[in-house]
Amino acid sequence: MKGCLKIIPLGGLGEIGKNIMALRYKDDMIVIDSGLMFPDDEMLGIDLVIPDVTYLVENRKHIRGIVLTHGHEDHIGALPYILREINVPIYGTKLTLGLLDAKLKESSYVNNVKKHCICAGDTIKLGAFNIEFIHVSHSIADVVALGIRTPVGTIVHTGDFKFDQTPVNNKPPDYHKFAELGKEGVLVLMSDSTNAERPGYTLSERVVADTFDETFRNARERIIIASFASNIHRIQLAITTAARYKRKVAVAGRSMVNVVNIARELGYLEVPAGTLIELDDVTNYPKNRVVVLTTGSQGEPMSALTRMAMCDHKRIEIIPGDTVVISASPIPGNEKMVHRTIDNLFRQGAEVIYESVSGVHVSGHASQEELKLMLNLVKPKFFIPVHGEYRHLIKHAQLAQDVGVSPENIFVVENGQVLEFTRDRGSVAGRVTSGRVLVDGLGVGDVGNIVLRDRRQLSQDGLVIIVVTMNQENGEVVAGPDIISRGFVYVRESEELIEEAKEKVRSILKTCEVQQITEWAAIKSCVRETAGKFFYERTRRRPMILPIIMDV
Amino acid sequence: MKGCLKIIPLGGLGEIGKNIMALRYKDDMIVIDSGLMFPDDEMLGIDLVIPDVTYLVENRKHIRGIVLTHGHEDHIGALPYILREINVPIYGTKLTLGLLDAKLKESSYVNNVKKHCICAGDTIKLGAFNIEFIHVSHSIADVVALGIRTPVGTIVHTGDFKFDQTPVNNKPPDYHKFAELGKEGVLVLMSDSTNAERPGYTLSERVVADTFDETFRNARERIIIASFASNIHRIQLAITTAARYKRKVAVAGRSMVNVVNIARELGYLEVPAGTLIELDDVTNYPKNRVVVLTTGSQGEPMSALTRMAMCDHKRIEIIPGDTVVISASPIPGNEKMVHRTIDNLFRQGAEVIYESVSGVHVSGHASQEELKLMLNLVKPKFFIPVHGEYRHLIKHAQLAQDVGVSPENIFVVENGQVLEFTRDRGSVAGRVTSGRVLVDGLGVGDVGNIVLRDRRQLSQDGLVIIVVTMNQENGEVVAGPDIISRGFVYVRESEELIEEAKEKVRSILKTCEVQQITEWAAIKSCVRETAGKFFYERTRRRPMILPIIMDV
Repeated sequence: MKGCLKIIPLGGLGEIGKNIMALRYKDDMIVIDSGLMFPDDEMLGIDLVIPDVTYLVENRKHIRGIVLTHGHEDHIGALPYILREINVPIYGTKLTLGLLDAKLKESSYVNNVKKHCICAGDTIKLGAFNIEFIHVSHSIADVVALGIRTPVGTIVHTGDFKFDQTPVNNKPPDYHKFAELGKEGVLVLMSDSTNAERPGYTLSERVVADTFDETFRNARERIIIASFASNIHRIQLAITTAARYKRKVAVAGRSMVNVVNIARELGYLEVPAGTLIELDDVTNYPKNRVVVLTTGSQGEPMSALTRMAMCDHKRIEIIPGDTVVISASPIPGNEKMVHRTIDNLFRQGAEVIYESVSGVHVSGHASQEELKLMLNLVKPKFFIPVHGEYRHLIKHAQLAQDVGVSPENIFVVENGQVLEFTRDRGSVAGRVTSGRVLVDGLGVGDVGNIVLRDRRQLSQDGLVIIVVTMNQENGEVVAGPDIISRGFVYVRESEELIEEAKEKVRSILKTCEVQQITEWAAIKSCVRETAGKFFYERTRRRPMILPIIMDV
Repeated sequence: MKGCLKIIPLGGLGEIGKNIMALRYKDDMIVIDSGLMFPDDEMLGIDLVIPDVTYLVENRKHIRGIVLTHGHEDHIGALPYILREINVPIYGTKLTLGLLDAKLKESSYVNNVKKHCICAGDTIKLGAFNIEFIHVSHSIADVVALGIRTPVGTIVHTGDFKFDQTPVNNKPPDYHKFAELGKEGVLVLMSDSTNAERPGYTLSERVVADTFDETFRNARERIIIASFASNIHRIQLAITTAARYKRKVAVAGRSMVNVVNIARELGYLEVPAGTLIELDDVTNYPKNRVVVLTTGSQGEPMSALTRMAMCDHKRIEIIPGDTVVISASPIPGNEKMVHRTIDNLFRQGAEVIYESVSGVHVSGHASQEELKLMLNLVKPKFFIPVHGEYRHLIKHAQLAQDVGVSPENIFVVENGQVLEFTRDRGSVAGRVTSGRVLVDGLGVGDVGNIVLRDRRQLSQDGLVIIVVTMNQENGEVVAGPDIISRGFVYVRESEELIEEAKEKVRSILKTCEVQQITEWAAIKSCVRETAGKFFYERTRRRPMILPIIMDV
């Protein structure tokens, strides 16, 4: 279709994380967010996952800018990598750019990034796109949704949001702007599906304020609060409550220290004078006069709270009488680590207040009633559920149908599927390259399926190396076979097994010699098969078997 | 203390799974249950975990029998291993012994097991112990709690239970027996803590009956129901509902087929004649006339439902119009796998009814109000929360306090801690050996920390093998160095890196020669360090480095 608007999701549709989407009208493109994702369990050894942006690289010259909705990792985390390939101007709010700055400094690969600070209420023009930034609530400060006027109609992208009626900063979401856009007429709404399975409304951050107040009132001795470092409203709550109860606040954990510093510098945290103290000074105050704010709400192995729970933190030891508040939900996949941390804290004698005790955490994403409210305010002609795994997108599509969007105007699509819109029509129109790029150490994309498959096999039953030195000319064994194993069996108890295996290998090598098999690949394959079969029969394990033939 | 009763938990306290406990009075011992546990994510390659029963082996001659409460893996699964070391008589209900038989047949290591079939209501005498079996509800049939009269007083062990007021088999738990024991006076109650965090009552299995009915009424085409194979009440529900709606039932998945067969043979499943059909015959019936009962409710990679969701099942393909019911909760740690299966089923066009839709699954364990009811019925002098991770035990202890048990009479202990009781006193009295034994293939206990540590390192960054053939006499390099890597980098793209590494190794070998370092261990350590440093600098990865020196 000529003169149509293309919507091209490159991440975040059919998955939670690495949100990124391109909008294109003729030769003008904008990109919304550039997030990362944390690896699944089966991505062994991988540090992070970023979106495949081949399409953006190929169309680099058309990109007018990257627009950021907020400063969470799943919205800005891929920028240090993506900006190496396409250095275009970035637009975001003050806090978002502050957090991005810290990331770019750490990565040190990207220079000369043009950053433009915008505020909710501002409008900018990028090529064919007029973008208005709309204030919404979420579990970080300074978050915006986007109202984008294009030649074919207005697009609304919610980013991540909830409709918090009583937010901590007393700035409710900009209902009026959504209502105004809805009244003008919106062509396409793209809305956050993270909580599309949850009925009702997401509780207000104010609920946590009440729970914190109660916790502080009841705590006899120290209070330790773990939360996401990026949840600045929550940190503000903790600090405000601490000040009210005349407690000093110390901060533990690298990312918590970083975010508190950035947020203070940029004016997103109000800290009453004299409230913050050094972590080393905690012991200088009476136990009922201190609060420790810490990372580790997900039970991450190296985090401050996990170390405290394991008696392995250099500065803070958990002691009976401590009250530990875990002010976060376990992200799916982290449940076991979080539970282990809670168990260990109880074992140290702490009172632990955690998720299943209601009121200690609320989600940052809209639940079903709020999603319907967004749909009803914006009244879009077309609807695309975004930011969610496939079942979330399906549930969100059902909600849209419930409020009256025609089923044929709802597009449940995944990364890489291109949608085209004119003033009155929308359709799925082909595919572009999309996918996952794995980051492992300094390597971006160099770990693929073969490497992961090997890591998986090695992780299950270890490996056995069989080394033989041979004379290539006559196929005679000069030295070996030697057998070395790792992660397979406990070596000292398995000497006999290894000796027997050597015998088997010797015998197959002899057979090869007799049969005049001289191709090394063929010899290796005989050795691999013989040893593999032997070890499987004896142990029911399938270690990776690596025959190595050295030539003299 | 002389003439006291010892309670010795060897598994299931401070963890979910591998439940096993010994009771000892003078020279008489009994064992309650012998369960296994599934491995944590970090136990790479491990198949299962069984309890360390060193204490039982050492006291073999005193053991009068093993008493089983029900047939779940976490209560009987370690028996094929434990019976190899202590072959003592087993007491259990008909279904429990039937499931045990199937396990023992599979393992084929244990013969001549003396099994005694008991019914709820029976009493047996094992040495100093008079054991009465008490009917309770749980997510499998034929489950008993234990009332154990000992010379110092009566012990009640609930096993796993819930108070289902409207169970599927119309046999409510034996409230009267608990009440009677409570009236007589109970010294110690040990009670199931699995759901001690959950307020209120656990829903009745009847709720699932209603949801099934509604699902069958609404389904236009095929219905596929995934559940735990051992949940015989749930399977009965599915079959009964299918028969009512004139649908045929086919069974998919090895363990589902096994359990359905065993349960039918033993009379625990009522299957109306002509209801069951072969899986291959499903296509011979109209779509609205069939139900498929399948394994895979946990998204297990090799299970029938997961294969269907991946279009990888030989016999059943998911087609638009199918209704899939996942009648189970994800066990902690399995959430991601279950979600992926749900997403894939939606992608195939199925309607999926799952956990967050209420009524499709209920727990088999008592919630807080039921736990308090048990405490109030039994009115124990002493209380020991069992079957739960540490926080569950703590929460259960708080419930006991709430109903009036004195805090000093509540013992929150973990595996291996011995408790001693007289008629009026209880105390923690030392420790016995306890712990985990890892089963990997045929190996029981041969995979320890070193092997697991190696597997972990291999899984993270793979390995690099550096082979050199040397003349031991003069330290001259005869062949190599050769470098082979697995799970480290994608080999074709890293030739340069490997060549550079070889150069580094050559150079350090030369240095060794010059410095007359001839000890092979010392040379290996130089090579390992040089290569490790080089690879870390270039990739920020730390593969396992294995230098191998072959001698000619």
